[in-house]
Amino acid sequence: MGRIGCLHAANIRASAEQAELIAVADPIKKLASVVAKKFGCRMYETPVKMLRDESLDGVVIATPTQMHTEHVKLASERNVPMLLEKPIALKLKEADRIASMVGRSRVKFQLGFNRRFDLSYSKTKMMIMKGKIGKPILVKTCARDPQPPPEEYIQRSGGIFVDECIHDIDIALWLMNSKVEQVWATGTTLVYPQFAKYGDFDNAVAILRFRNGGLGVIEGSRTSNYGYDLRTEVLGDQGAVRIDNLRNDSLELLEAHGAMTQPCPWFIERFAQAYRSEIERFCDYVSQGGNSPVSAEEGRASLQVALAARESARRKRAITIRDERKTA
Amino acid sequence: MGRIGCLHAANIRASAEQAELIAVADPIKKLASVVAKKFGCRMYETPVKMLRDESLDGVVIATPTQMHTEHVKLASERNVPMLLEKPIALKLKEADRIASMVGRSRVKFQLGFNRRFDLSYSKTKMMIMKGKIGKPILVKTCARDPQPPPEEYIQRSGGIFVDECIHDIDIALWLMNSKVEQVWATGTTLVYPQFAKYGDFDNAVAILRFRNGGLGVIEGSRTSNYGYDLRTEVLGDQGAVRIDNLRNDSLELLEAHGAMTQPCPWFIERFAQAYRSEIERFCDYVSQGGNSPVSAEEGRASLQVALAARESARRKRAITIRDERKTA
Amino acid sequence: MGRIGCLHAANIRASAEQAELIAVADPIKKLASVVAKKFGCRMYETPVKMLRDESLDGVVIATPTQMHTEHVKLASERNVPMLLEKPIALKLKEADRIASMVGRSRVKFQLGFNRRFDLSYSKTKMMIMKGKIGKPILVKTCARDPQPPPEEYIQRSGGIFVDECIHDIDIALWLMNSKVEQVWATGTTLVYPQFAKYGDFDNAVAILRFRNGGLGVIEGSRTSNYGYDLRTEVLGDQGAVRIDNLRNDSLELLEAHGAMTQPCPWFIERFAQAYRSEIERFCDYVSQGGNSPVSAEEGRASLQVALAARESARRKRAITIRDERKTA
Amino acid sequence: MGRIGCLHAANIRASAEQAELIAVADPIKKLASVVAKKFGCRMYETPVKMLRDESLDGVVIATPTQMHTEHVKLASERNVPMLLEKPIALKLKEADRIASMVGRSRVKFQLGFNRRFDLSYSKTKMMIMKGKIGKPILVKTCARDPQPPPEEYIQRSGGIFVDECIHDIDIALWLMNSKVEQVWATGTTLVYPQFAKYGDFDNAVAILRFRNGGLGVIEGSRTSNYGYDLRTEVLGDQGAVRIDNLRNDSLELLEAHGAMTQPCPWFIERFAQAYRSEIERFCDYVSQGGNSPVSAEEGRASLQVALAARESARRKRAITIRDERKTA
Repeated sequence: MGRIGCLHAANIRASAEQAELIAVADPIKKLASVVAKKFGCRMYETPVKMLRDESLDGVVIATPTQMHTEHVKLASERNVPMLLEKPIALKLKEADRIASMVGRSRVKFQLGFNRRFDLSYSKTKMMIMKGKIGKPILVKTCARDPQPPPEEYIQRSGGIFVDECIHDIDIALWLMNSKVEQVWATGTTLVYPQFAKYGDFDNAVAILRFRNGGLGVIEGSRTSNYGYDLRTEVLGDQGAVRIDNLRNDSLELLEAHGAMTQPCPWFIERFAQAYRSEIERFCDYVSQGGNSPVSAEEGRASLQVALAARESARRKRAITIRDERKTA
Repeated sequence: MGRIGCLHAANIRASAEQAELIAVADPIKKLASVVAKKFGCRMYETPVKMLRDESLDGVVIATPTQMHTEHVKLASERNVPMLLEKPIALKLKEADRIASMVGRSRVKFQLGFNRRFDLSYSKTKMMIMKGKIGKPILVKTCARDPQPPPEEYIQRSGGIFVDECIHDIDIALWLMNSKVEQVWATGTTLVYPQFAKYGDFDNAVAILRFRNGGLGVIEGSRTSNYGYDLRTEVLGDQGAVRIDNLRNDSLELLEAHGAMTQPCPWFIERFAQAYRSEIERFCDYVSQGGNSPVSAEEGRASLQVALAARESARRKRAITIRDERKTA
Repeated sequence: MGRIGCLHAANIRASAEQAELIAVADPIKKLASVVAKKFGCRMYETPVKMLRDESLDGVVIATPTQMHTEHVKLASERNVPMLLEKPIALKLKEADRIASMVGRSRVKFQLGFNRRFDLSYSKTKMMIMKGKIGKPILVKTCARDPQPPPEEYIQRSGGIFVDECIHDIDIALWLMNSKVEQVWATGTTLVYPQFAKYGDFDNAVAILRFRNGGLGVIEGSRTSNYGYDLRTEVLGDQGAVRIDNLRNDSLELLEAHGAMTQPCPWFIERFAQAYRSEIERFCDYVSQGGNSPVSAEEGRASLQVALAARESARRKRAITIRDERKTA
Repeated sequence: MGRIGCLHAANIRASAEQAELIAVADPIKKLASVVAKKFGCRMYETPVKMLRDESLDGVVIATPTQMHTEHVKLASERNVPMLLEKPIALKLKEADRIASMVGRSRVKFQLGFNRRFDLSYSKTKMMIMKGKIGKPILVKTCARDPQPPPEEYIQRSGGIFVDECIHDIDIALWLMNSKVEQVWATGTTLVYPQFAKYGDFDNAVAILRFRNGGLGVIEGSRTSNYGYDLRTEVLGDQGAVRIDNLRNDSLELLEAHGAMTQPCPWFIERFAQAYRSEIERFCDYVSQGGNSPVSAEEGRASLQVALAARESARRKRAITIRDERKTA
């Protein structure tokens, strides 16, 4: 029951009309018991037991990425609809396995790209689909975290592209509605030189070329000490959409040296509505069916681009993304 | 179970860690049963029965203003902490009775001025208390509703100052931290001439003079066909704070004729966070005690100013607010 | 050659295609000679001499308000087109005399309400004329100066309504396109109590009732220590226009405590474009004729409202503006 | 006397205290005569004649880029201080020749990167120098023109990086205060496929790696049909600066479908102040000496990066910029 797991638990509990929180599982008994007590639900030490003993309509998997394959397997075998946290996996092979299990079992699967359910992002998608900006030419994203994760996490996070920018890569793919054919990326360690030994960066940028001729610019930072800074824009041949930082207040303090405003401090506040809507969308998907709101294939595609960006930055050359994987 | 009653019910249900929704009451059985079913709680046809049969830790009273005295009496007699919707009453005499009942019974009482719990407003209050803008000189509010209430409601609403601007008057009193000694107001019926026959206005403004020498400008509109427009600002001798319209998305559409943004469409979206926080604050008040977050006396003070504004606009002269009521 | 006189001289000099700066006059020889040297023009100690000895196509009168009647008389007698600085006069009787002289002599006369030539204001007027906001219901203005004029100036300035707010009153009359029938005003001296002895205020507000049923709110401050703050808005029954503070840069500094921007520091920067356009408009008027861009009658109307506001604030009662003056 | 030449002429004429416009030269006699008449100055058919016959304190060279070397030579030989329009040249060899001539003759030389004199940009530079954002990590620029130049111009413009993005490249080099060591760029012709035959793009992006470890992202568009869109930002390890689109009015039109604002329509309006300041700075440089405001070496450096970006985009590989040219 990490930060995101607890957030999902609270949102399930709050969306009481749609879903009931039955049980939580965590090998660290103390963590599970805190949540279980708070929300009045049962607790398990392992997902295996939970899935065996409970008859669940859906499960949220917010376990460490390394364990995703195992836990998707469990849920697939029991045909329990699942909401899997991002990234889908750390390796393309694992993503393929997950996509393959989900495909074969036909279990309902939704990947945890919460940003898709944010009002600004979903409105942008709608506007593009309605032709408001014409044909998309360029997508640009900016994601700056106020501080990096702990160094021990850096070692196994998959790197800035796989851990942080994968949200932006997913959004870029979704908004451009095309696949990426080539990636060029680079990064620096001007602030945390120690990240270099894990092949990681504190700041990084990537250029994407899409198959439809469109372009993408992905920018990620882990050193934005002035606060969380999250923006996206799409330029089309008829107009453009800019998603700027959201504010959760609307006040401006006017002092002799200037007028001051404050953006949302961090992703929890920025995406509070998106996390709630994501759960609601998952509930609708479970109860009403239809296409996956965010499919395993989409999760694989974003991972592939993120891995290509990492490789490009390490090898200092453009990486071409091959047409398709051989076989699932 | 009107619009606000249902909203409170949903928020109580969602804030599950703090409170449990036990029962709802409405003489229109159908309304009560919809809510009761949705949230899995009991229902009553009258508040009397509900308060008699249930052992409640708190009650939200969102009944028509004309019934406030009766319902506050019920809750006071049973010593059930209550959150009473605004305005406290339509007449000063009724407000006095409510304040008096609450005072004598020492029941916990919180008036439903939700705006106080909005992030922008609570931050503003904090900034002023911290001296960020120095001594407050002037408060200005603007509240424009996209459309007026139905004509039949207009007849018994108490008028634009009592029904709509009372929120702004409360905020003005709270931020200036002083009482009003004189009010000058006027209004028009340029858009809905039929409002004139009820002595009401579709657009109105008032100037307040505070006892501490400060000034206030209250502006209310029921004809803002371009959307909800809600702003407040305080000018101090060292700086100022402006609360502008909040947006619940952060996107901008760029087209040949300009860049377009959208504010929150209506008060439900604008104050979603405030309504949630109001319930949380009420729960804290019930469980932990302390001063009333919004007292009956404060409710009376805002009503007094609103009534003075109405009288000023009708009689076309300044109204001086006498020092104090005779007796509690 | 005060601040505004020099500004006009520089703008005439810069708009070289349209006009040539021939001469300046100031009884304080030193002031005139600085400007004359800088711009390579002749200088005079008195307007009388200048108007007698030079053959001028136009003259800018930026003398103390008390001398306006005398100087307008001079220019009228010689039929020299004039741009007269605001306010037209300090007393209504003087404004009447000026309007009357101008009317009889049919000399070209433009009053120095520079704000009318500001891009934001002229666009707003255009939008209203095109019906973009429907029928205007309410105009609100805010003018906050960073510091008050020197106390000796306060004594003879005519007061905050006549000296500072007259710009806003003119704009309100212009945008509402109606006359004012009633004024209610009040003010404070919370920051400069010494202003009270001159019957003046450091902060003041006024409500205007227009003959067409529209409303106006005028707010003026001389204590905005956080900077110049100048805003206007008009609410119509189909939409609204807001003119917010203009910025002359577009940068935002992002620091840990927030995002900081800066508005134009003072009216010289805020209205640089407007002052240039005002001179250009004057040149066009001189060379091409047509209606006065800002007539003496308009100057008289704004003065009348300003004087009514001052009287209202002093006498603490509403002032009704009588239909028309008896005779010109 | 093209668009920019006329603009400089008007600005010299307007800055009358600092400089006098003596003469203009253009082989197309008609163009020169229009300007000469308008501003009352002499005209020449060739720069040679003008420089021979007039005793000039300075000259603005706004001739086609192909002729820069010839005209810089003329001015250098006569030791006439010059303001040369950007880009310095189309080929690095020419830039070297110009830098070399200027270096040997020690003539005063200022390159026409007007953006450096824009208030937003100069304030940003100042803030960075003062350490407001700490160590610069990343610079991002966005320059979107509302429409492309005519196709015949595209053929000899040097391409989008040399013609349009060179402004942004100069700003990036200036703000990062470091040299570029590697460039990766790519572009599309989604809107104007015909540009492909000249090896040019309608939209393009480039990533820069600076020697100090910093990163840069340059984005240029010639298809921004929603208007001129010009932004720059610098992320530092202590904060960031964002330069957003400037507006030359401050109004917002509020209609049922949203709130609309408008940015400056095109670079002439956007940089009106910068062009004026550029001339003033040139006058100061001529009269007072000191370092060149924008040196030939800086012009060469930006051209080198622009050419590397063009080569990268054409050859689809990263281009490393070699340490230094051998010899001038």
